Amino acid sequence: MKAYQLLEEHFRHIAQLEQISHILHWDTVVVMPEGGGRLREGQTSLIKTLVHERLTNPSVEGWIGEAESDAGALSPWQQANLFRMKHDWLHATAVGADLVEAYARLSLKCELRWQEARKANDFASVAPMLEELVGLCRQMGQAKGEKLGCDPYDALLDSFDAGQRTDEIDRIFATLEKELPTLIQEVTEKQKSQKLVTPTAPVSQDKQKKLGLLCMVALGFNFKEGRLDESVHPFCGGFPGDVRITTRYNESDVSESLMGIIHETGHALYEQGLPKDFADQPVGRAASMSVHESQSLFMEMQISRSPSFLTFIAPHMEDILGLPSEVVAEDNIRRWYHQVKPGLIRVDADEVTYPMHVILRYRMEQKLIAGELAVKDLPDAWRESMQRYLGITPPDDKDGCMQDVHWYCGALGYFPTYTLGAMMAAQFFDAMTKAVPDAHTMIAKGQFDPIVAWQRENIHSKGSLYTSSKLLEHVTGKPLDADLFLNHLKGRYL
Amino acid sequence: MKAYQLLEEHFRHIAQLEQISHILHWDTVVVMPEGGGRLREGQTSLIKTLVHERLTNPSVEGWIGEAESDAGALSPWQQANLFRMKHDWLHATAVGADLVEAYARLSLKCELRWQEARKANDFASVAPMLEELVGLCRQMGQAKGEKLGCDPYDALLDSFDAGQRTDEIDRIFATLEKELPTLIQEVTEKQKSQKLVTPTAPVSQDKQKKLGLLCMVALGFNFKEGRLDESVHPFCGGFPGDVRITTRYNESDVSESLMGIIHETGHALYEQGLPKDFADQPVGRAASMSVHESQSLFMEMQISRSPSFLTFIAPHMEDILGLPSEVVAEDNIRRWYHQVKPGLIRVDADEVTYPMHVILRYRMEQKLIAGELAVKDLPDAWRESMQRYLGITPPDDKDGCMQDVHWYCGALGYFPTYTLGAMMAAQFFDAMTKAVPDAHTMIAKGQFDPIVAWQRENIHSKGSLYTSSKLLEHVTGKPLDADLFLNHLKGRYL
Repeated sequence: MKAYQLLEEHFRHIAQLEQISHILHWDTVVVMPEGGGRLREGQTSLIKTLVHERLTNPSVEGWIGEAESDAGALSPWQQANLFRMKHDWLHATAVGADLVEAYARLSLKCELRWQEARKANDFASVAPMLEELVGLCRQMGQAKGEKLGCDPYDALLDSFDAGQRTDEIDRIFATLEKELPTLIQEVTEKQKSQKLVTPTAPVSQDKQKKLGLLCMVALGFNFKEGRLDESVHPFCGGFPGDVRITTRYNESDVSESLMGIIHETGHALYEQGLPKDFADQPVGRAASMSVHESQSLFMEMQISRSPSFLTFIAPHMEDILGLPSEVVAEDNIRRWYHQVKPGLIRVDADEVTYPMHVILRYRMEQKLIAGELAVKDLPDAWRESMQRYLGITPPDDKDGCMQDVHWYCGALGYFPTYTLGAMMAAQFFDAMTKAVPDAHTMIAKGQFDPIVAWQRENIHSKGSLYTSSKLLEHVTGKPLDADLFLNHLKGRYL
Repeated sequence: MKAYQLLEEHFRHIAQLEQISHILHWDTVVVMPEGGGRLREGQTSLIKTLVHERLTNPSVEGWIGEAESDAGALSPWQQANLFRMKHDWLHATAVGADLVEAYARLSLKCELRWQEARKANDFASVAPMLEELVGLCRQMGQAKGEKLGCDPYDALLDSFDAGQRTDEIDRIFATLEKELPTLIQEVTEKQKSQKLVTPTAPVSQDKQKKLGLLCMVALGFNFKEGRLDESVHPFCGGFPGDVRITTRYNESDVSESLMGIIHETGHALYEQGLPKDFADQPVGRAASMSVHESQSLFMEMQISRSPSFLTFIAPHMEDILGLPSEVVAEDNIRRWYHQVKPGLIRVDADEVTYPMHVILRYRMEQKLIAGELAVKDLPDAWRESMQRYLGITPPDDKDGCMQDVHWYCGALGYFPTYTLGAMMAAQFFDAMTKAVPDAHTMIAKGQFDPIVAWQRENIHSKGSLYTSSKLLEHVTGKPLDADLFLNHLKGRYL
């Protein structure tokens, strides 16, 4: 037990450093003035270096070995904590301090450069930096792959979703790639003849924020332990007790901020519901980024696009946003929220075309890591992929290969978690409706408590007690099931 | 040179940790939700512990010794940097890591408790925590005093103003205590018969903010390298490149936020003007907290209460705030801004009574550290002091001994820097008017550039090249001169 306790103490400091890292990141993208970037780089990389230093401290290996040899004396939570510690330790010891520092510095610098480049629609101004960053990710993938005994891309994936591998993803994505194009065609064909009224007058940011806050409160976001702000790319950050989400407002599209807020609230409820007793231990964190995405998409796709939710929200859209009654009329609002249309932007995509956005990014980032695609060729490759997967070609890079922050902040390997998350969300929702039979009646009344309580009990409060696949099986009784997701789509859209 | 270079590298990390500490503090008091406090405590104390760990690293002593023995090879900036490194090292090695961590945790906890206690006017709810915190400050003072060879209170003072000692402060404060009561009486007597029209209608926060921003821009605040927010206690934080000020708005007193913003802008201009080449070295920081206060009071007391500034601001107060023309009329606005009246609140005090607020706090905190005054007796002692120094008795503790954050965040030894700063400000201003003969004409036109350029060249860009007293002599040709300050007051108010 002594070795395990030393590890807990050691990882407590690591957790504190990671919390600080979260706050610095929030600060950087939400409030930091431009001039702060120069010194922020050093601050951020120092924190990452300190985390790495602690993870690679020579004592850790011995403590892990000792704790493992006496694992029988540990509780299941402690055993899971030890598993997560070892995971983090393996990832950290695979790479040198120099690489960690270079990656920390460059990923911040490149993200800030991307913000400007995207505004100016100027890919060339960020490309050399991105090229360098992809190179560092490749190095990290190779080094971690050797240690973990897997491919470089798998190793990157593993840092967002412990145990996840491309062969499993390829199997699942193959089903989607086979089924979705037909489904998209059928749905768009069916919707062609539908009469749809959408809002035409711009809606002020204040009104949109008011509606967003109403939804956050209804869904159970705890404002004593979190806040809502604005940023270029919406995200959820912070740590349990202080969970911060952001959104962006588009006066000519009210659904953008609303869907964004509901999505991030899904993430936030997960963070707010993590086990407080392990707040400063690895096992107290989310099970994986795909489970995290499952919780945001549970809210966004499963709940907020359901007919019952639209019944709840329609009168508020009329009252608060001042939308015309013909827009929020029952049939029309459903057609509006169930519109399927291949579009340029991933975060604005409907749930039927969304996986295609993810799959094309997944294929491209695999090639970037394998060195089969050069950064300078990204814009062309993007246009070609968009045409192939969605039948449209972006007119510029701003809404093309520069729309998402992920690559520009060095998060290669992240994209698949969105679609894995979407599929898990469908599976979790299915399980939830069995446990809460009147769920749809509750949703229509805006009473989300029993649903969130179910999530909290089965998912949120479990932290990292299980890996994602084990958690899914534990909660739903079966592994990830592509058919369940496809059936959900067919049921809602056909 | 090698030892010196190792020190520079070592202190770069310390500077980065201190910058992070500034951001965490800003975050805590400006944006952090209530629930963040529990984990923030651990984060903050970890950073302070890391700073302490690095400062007390056994190599530092050797490097300092070696660098000192070869000081001839160093430039004046490097020599000054070495002096500051040694100062920080002496302070750090005087106290143990346990005390540093306990102090970091408790000072944050007590500040947050104070925020609530002040709102509720409930001194008893924060008193036990404050008692404990004062105890830790006393321990720190004793330990540092032994190392520095001075009294415990002097040692605390030394951490805010290197080289400053109570015997010098006592000498100067004695002059003020002798002269000011008569001056206050004469001025209030003179003002008794004056007819004064002050605003009666409340002014919205938005309008006040607009005027505040106008002043910040006019004074040369660089918004690319800083921002303005709100907090319970106005302050200036951040680091060069990212300097953040806060204010608080009172709809029934427009001068409160305006004076606050101008005061903090004075601090901010100092930070924004520090030498960028030494941004991550001790010599790149402000010379001392008294010089810092001299720069805020230079703006607030010397400039913004001058008749020429009132000429500049009057039309804007009419336009933006909507104040009646009889309020902003030349004679009336001067009478308004030159009103001398003993009041309850230090930060709202006029410049004639202000030193009395400081002196009474100085005497009380000396007694707290010496153990001659118990925290539980603070409210009574406060009332008695206010009566003695200013002839008024606060009706409650909220506007009595709970009005300032300083003691509640463990900053004992800070208060004297305000009055030292006010006196330096008068002396700097006097020197400036000799170098910029048309200063008053420029101020009346709202053209502050040549004045700020003078400050930047003579004070801001010097960083910590000199200690405060050396800097003052260097710039004004003489040591701190109480008569010059008193003459300024007599000139303006009699």
